[in-house]
Amino acid sequence: MDYKKILVNDHVKPFLLKARYGIEKESHRVDLSGNLASTDHPKSITLKDDHPYIQRDFSETQMEIITPVSETLEDLFNYLAAIHDVAYRSMDENEMLWPLSMPPQLPENEDEIVIAKLDNVENTRYRQFLAHSHGRRKQMISGIHYNFQFGDEFIQALFNLQSEITDYRHFKEEIYLKVTRNYLHYRWLVTYFYGASPRSEKNFFEDDSLNGAVRSIRGSKYGYVNSDNVLVSYKSIQNYLADLSSMVKKGILSEEKEFYAPIRLRGGHHVSDLEDHGVHYIELRNIDLNPFETYGISYEQAEFLHLFLLYLLWKDEGDQCDEWGKMGDFYNEIVALEHPLAHTPFEEEAKSIIDEMEHLVDILDLSVSDTLFVHLREMLMDPSKTLAGRLYKESEKSSQSQVATSIAKENYKKSWDKPYQLAGFTDMELSTQILMFDAIQQGIQIEILDRQDQFLKLKLKDHVEYVKNGNMTSKDTYVSSLIMENKTVTKKILHQHGFRVPKGEEFQTIEQASRSYHLFSSKPFVVKPKTTNYGIGISIFKDGANYEDYQQALKLAFKEDSSVLVEEFINGTEYRFFVLNDQVYAVLLRIPANVKGDGKHTIEELVTNKNRDPLRGRDHRTPLELIRLGELEKLMLKGQGYRMDSIPEKDVIIYLRENSNISTGGDSIDVTDLIPDDYKKIAVDAVAALGVKICGIDLIIEDTRVPATNKNAYGIIEANFNPSMYMHVYPYSGKSRRLTIHIIQYLFPELLESQDSKLINLGVPLAKREFATVTC
Amino acid sequence: MDYKKILVNDHVKPFLLKARYGIEKESHRVDLSGNLASTDHPKSITLKDDHPYIQRDFSETQMEIITPVSETLEDLFNYLAAIHDVAYRSMDENEMLWPLSMPPQLPENEDEIVIAKLDNVENTRYRQFLAHSHGRRKQMISGIHYNFQFGDEFIQALFNLQSEITDYRHFKEEIYLKVTRNYLHYRWLVTYFYGASPRSEKNFFEDDSLNGAVRSIRGSKYGYVNSDNVLVSYKSIQNYLADLSSMVKKGILSEEKEFYAPIRLRGGHHVSDLEDHGVHYIELRNIDLNPFETYGISYEQAEFLHLFLLYLLWKDEGDQCDEWGKMGDFYNEIVALEHPLAHTPFEEEAKSIIDEMEHLVDILDLSVSDTLFVHLREMLMDPSKTLAGRLYKESEKSSQSQVATSIAKENYKKSWDKPYQLAGFTDMELSTQILMFDAIQQGIQIEILDRQDQFLKLKLKDHVEYVKNGNMTSKDTYVSSLIMENKTVTKKILHQHGFRVPKGEEFQTIEQASRSYHLFSSKPFVVKPKTTNYGIGISIFKDGANYEDYQQALKLAFKEDSSVLVEEFINGTEYRFFVLNDQVYAVLLRIPANVKGDGKHTIEELVTNKNRDPLRGRDHRTPLELIRLGELEKLMLKGQGYRMDSIPEKDVIIYLRENSNISTGGDSIDVTDLIPDDYKKIAVDAVAALGVKICGIDLIIEDTRVPATNKNAYGIIEANFNPSMYMHVYPYSGKSRRLTIHIIQYLFPELLESQDSKLINLGVPLAKREFATVTC
Repeated sequence: MDYKKILVNDHVKPFLLKARYGIEKESHRVDLSGNLASTDHPKSITLKDDHPYIQRDFSETQMEIITPVSETLEDLFNYLAAIHDVAYRSMDENEMLWPLSMPPQLPENEDEIVIAKLDNVENTRYRQFLAHSHGRRKQMISGIHYNFQFGDEFIQALFNLQSEITDYRHFKEEIYLKVTRNYLHYRWLVTYFYGASPRSEKNFFEDDSLNGAVRSIRGSKYGYVNSDNVLVSYKSIQNYLADLSSMVKKGILSEEKEFYAPIRLRGGHHVSDLEDHGVHYIELRNIDLNPFETYGISYEQAEFLHLFLLYLLWKDEGDQCDEWGKMGDFYNEIVALEHPLAHTPFEEEAKSIIDEMEHLVDILDLSVSDTLFVHLREMLMDPSKTLAGRLYKESEKSSQSQVATSIAKENYKKSWDKPYQLAGFTDMELSTQILMFDAIQQGIQIEILDRQDQFLKLKLKDHVEYVKNGNMTSKDTYVSSLIMENKTVTKKILHQHGFRVPKGEEFQTIEQASRSYHLFSSKPFVVKPKTTNYGIGISIFKDGANYEDYQQALKLAFKEDSSVLVEEFINGTEYRFFVLNDQVYAVLLRIPANVKGDGKHTIEELVTNKNRDPLRGRDHRTPLELIRLGELEKLMLKGQGYRMDSIPEKDVIIYLRENSNISTGGDSIDVTDLIPDDYKKIAVDAVAALGVKICGIDLIIEDTRVPATNKNAYGIIEANFNPSMYMHVYPYSGKSRRLTIHIIQYLFPELLESQDSKLINLGVPLAKREFATVTC
Repeated sequence: MDYKKILVNDHVKPFLLKARYGIEKESHRVDLSGNLASTDHPKSITLKDDHPYIQRDFSETQMEIITPVSETLEDLFNYLAAIHDVAYRSMDENEMLWPLSMPPQLPENEDEIVIAKLDNVENTRYRQFLAHSHGRRKQMISGIHYNFQFGDEFIQALFNLQSEITDYRHFKEEIYLKVTRNYLHYRWLVTYFYGASPRSEKNFFEDDSLNGAVRSIRGSKYGYVNSDNVLVSYKSIQNYLADLSSMVKKGILSEEKEFYAPIRLRGGHHVSDLEDHGVHYIELRNIDLNPFETYGISYEQAEFLHLFLLYLLWKDEGDQCDEWGKMGDFYNEIVALEHPLAHTPFEEEAKSIIDEMEHLVDILDLSVSDTLFVHLREMLMDPSKTLAGRLYKESEKSSQSQVATSIAKENYKKSWDKPYQLAGFTDMELSTQILMFDAIQQGIQIEILDRQDQFLKLKLKDHVEYVKNGNMTSKDTYVSSLIMENKTVTKKILHQHGFRVPKGEEFQTIEQASRSYHLFSSKPFVVKPKTTNYGIGISIFKDGANYEDYQQALKLAFKEDSSVLVEEFINGTEYRFFVLNDQVYAVLLRIPANVKGDGKHTIEELVTNKNRDPLRGRDHRTPLELIRLGELEKLMLKGQGYRMDSIPEKDVIIYLRENSNISTGGDSIDVTDLIPDDYKKIAVDAVAALGVKICGIDLIIEDTRVPATNKNAYGIIEANFNPSMYMHVYPYSGKSRRLTIHIIQYLFPELLESQDSKLINLGVPLAKREFATVTC
């Protein structure tokens, strides 16, 4: 097959970089001093054996992070980051992940290495067998498996351009076989650039078998390899499968999955899939953990690997295919065992491969990172710039172990820095990020159907749920959301069910509304647009209004909407009740932006200080917003006789805003435990009257000590079909209420039916933050 | 109580015209010649005995129309109109309603008058008793009952301004008692203006007891009144109830509801409610049918009655309360039996009452119709302008019966003129109007929660359903509507379930989209904004596109939305499948605006002619839109070598538009019976995959004769969460599919469980229009 010719065809071009990726990454849990953790795998990560994202490999400390199959490298790295975030924040607070392929110091007695405590007996037995046959020490080496699948349209386009092979499955196999054979031959290049296991820590080797530093212990014969008598042909799938099967029959391999090739042909999850379905993808297994990357591999590395595989398809191979592979083993062993700072004898060949790869990028019109080839050439010219070289040089200053520990600590800090965020998805709405965190932790598979639209598909075994904005689900009916969207309809229905709502009327024109002036003029009332939100266009008259002010308010409101509501204003404090499936899970009080005087600092300084809170940021990507000092705030200060440089007395609270919106710097205060049950019942019953299951309902209560049954004890202002959950999860003060986990458990009740149900609630990580006690 | 003083208080003013109204209106079904109908009550009006809106009174032909309680006169008349529309279009096609209070010619033998064939035995027995005690003839008189309740805030405001009566219920009773006593005294005024039963038809009177024409037979002793020895005091509720009870005990009345006063105090549905709950409202029973109004009463009349009742509360009454009422009976009898064209001896008093009423309007700052007092004074000055006078004068030219028959015919025509509309609600969306029609017919109570928003509350016994736009219901989930709203998510889910959807990508910037040019360039493809509808911003390239055209299309699409889809264009014909609860109820083909040549007329003439179809109109208030002849249409003609004045040959079809939207004059063609089941199954399964229950799903099919399982036999373009139902109910050609009734039966399955289930389907009135046979 002349791949060189068909790859450059215009019909192939649109699909050249279409591919699917997946990463499995092992690393050990260690304590803050870099010692192997003595604790069990985190209990908060449920579904332990079956967890789709976070598992254990050989030992109890060896955490394996598994990304879902991704269509782009961006997606792949987003998931990798997110699952790492969940893993980190699910672990003991004093634990972190070891960033090196070679394990930290092992116990002197290898039997003290704890095999993963899996539920499934067979899985445990298999690990016991491995411990017995290979020794526990070697099993502790960690690395990256890079799963790669050419896009189907890409292979299809190539297939259509040739007539040599008429069977599509066969054609696909030939493609993967060629890439595999060439990978075996040329993989020394990967070892040179990205090998990163120069030294072992104490007690890894029983003897002094390896002296001095190398490029990759893991990639050499000292790593995790089969014995020399394991010989498998890559001439065809038939040969490959026949050889494997014969090795097992002869007892040279205990089972087929014991074949530890640096690259594996994969038909699916099981070895047998290969025979049944042909090759679906390949698995590169010779990637050391990149110590300098938080997630063990860089985007540029992943990009290189894709390009390299494309190059290997393009590049001619040797005639003797199995010999070609064996030569590769030989070259790789040389490169793996070179000193990390040594120039390699293959430097010239490497240079010409890089040149060819760059040529390929040119003729195929591919877009790759600008720096990729710059970096590759730098590493070729200067071995100290390779991963092994860098790690070796860093370690010279102290020790490899100290370097690894300090890298681990940085990664640890990063993951706890903004505990409300989910790395990889920080552009999404905060409530969705928190929900995704919980879903990953619970072992629920996530697919993002529309990122901008916060649209998720959640899957637990065969059970699928779609969720938008974290709380729009299949549990609510279509019409109930429309009811909540329409303030007039909401009020009518609540009123018909006997709840107190502000009396009012809806108007379509200023003239119409003007005629009803006398209905409202002498009482407290509000003028507001019917459908807009966030307080825009609303005027409040706490002591009635004269005709001119009323007119002005109508004009403002009609600017925002073609329908305007004029309503009685109900006095009291507004509380947000979060109701889920007939239960109140959280009650929140929102207080306008404010600072508390200390008798020393100016208002400006107090604001600056309050804004240092890591929970405060901009644009709803943090649980609280920065307090601003704009015109409105200055006006508000002036009204109270203050200026920005005034120094308020100790404990005096200065309000900077009239409105209590979180979006303008307001404080959110959890008061769930302070609100009497009778008001919670009102909230639950009102939400039920609307036929709603998930709702943020706003009650105005004049005095919570007065029974809710008293006349005019409360008024219901609004029912929100898209309540912000994050403000309950990360309030300014008071207890955190992890609503997202309740949503997940409501959607997937089977989670609670499992034996681990108690663990679920215990395991939810809250913000590592001491909340102030409630001051309201 | 000095009502004159407290009524003018500023605290009362805002509530003066707040009230609740209800109308019951009887009239007889007659054939097109004006003879009493010999048919049964319409079968399509189900729930016969319990129907909330359409019932029978005494006889099988005596239809009673009952409005729901309404907060405004506008609402009241809307309902009155709508229920009439339903009644008319539920009746036999050759039947209409008799517009007079006095029945049409009765059978010589009164036993031939058919008593209402009710299911409930007791109801039938009661009518038999009436027939026996009063004779069947008198029971055939029809009229209007006007139920009136002062607004609660109005009474509350009055109550707060006085200290004489401390009990609110008692105060309310006093108000209604005063109004009632004054009404009894002054009701002759109503009889003068609105009495409208001057003559009887043949066989009404057994003898010649009444000679010549009068103002109101019905309002006189010849009408439906108690005998003289029925005496009830209106001094207090206690007296009133005691007297009634004593009349029954003495056998003067058979039961309490046999008390036929011209005004009744009402506590609720039953007489006993008065004792239990006090007075809730009053019922004016002395209103003749207004022959000149389609619905038996005019808005101005209703307004007069409200104002009159307010006046009667304001107006001082006589000291001797029961005497005061009896005097009223005497005056009324005089006025009722005057010749219709005679001036009344009470003219001067009437004039001063009208002056006082106008004065009241002034001092209370009330807003009433400009013409009200003009008309009242005209009628006072010229008796021929009163209702009785007008009917008498008209009848002189032919006969009262002929006048009545011709009025009935006009009303009949009006109700059938635009059978897709529901009178009173023609501003609402057509699908909602049709659904409301069906709901009223099925005896489901309708409340409009938000008229602009097409938001309905439907109620059948205790079962409540909320519906927006006729098809957004509790049967669909919130998230499924959000899935349909998002084209990308819809496509992803359908694709994951194995359905063919156009392949494509979503882009956020023109640059991003430009880079993918080669993915689409050589195939048919579409560029479209992600969320806008109605074909805006869409470019179709049926044979691929050059780079410049692609860029242009992207610019157009990004003008409409921040996300743009570029998709494969699927060849074939687009069909709209309406799926409801896993069943296809209708399939529609939409054809671009077109005319068919006849070799004689110009294109302009053909368009004018086609636009004469009563189904065509503007702004979605008719099932089809008028075909326009604007710039776009002219351009389209030019492209085909035509001009507006070209005369196309016979049977040549000229298209005036590229797009097939109904909104731009397209034709809707029902093809439900022509589409093979396998394609219907695709539609049903796809809708199920989205988790949707009510959906309009668009399939492109290249050839319906090819099995749906063939590769690329179809493609799914879109799933609509708000499909227009009306276009299926009133297609341009093909069979009408009454989807609205299926929606109702889906929401209220108990309708089908009732014994009458078969009748429901039979009874649905379709448009009285011969649809052309399908020509596609």
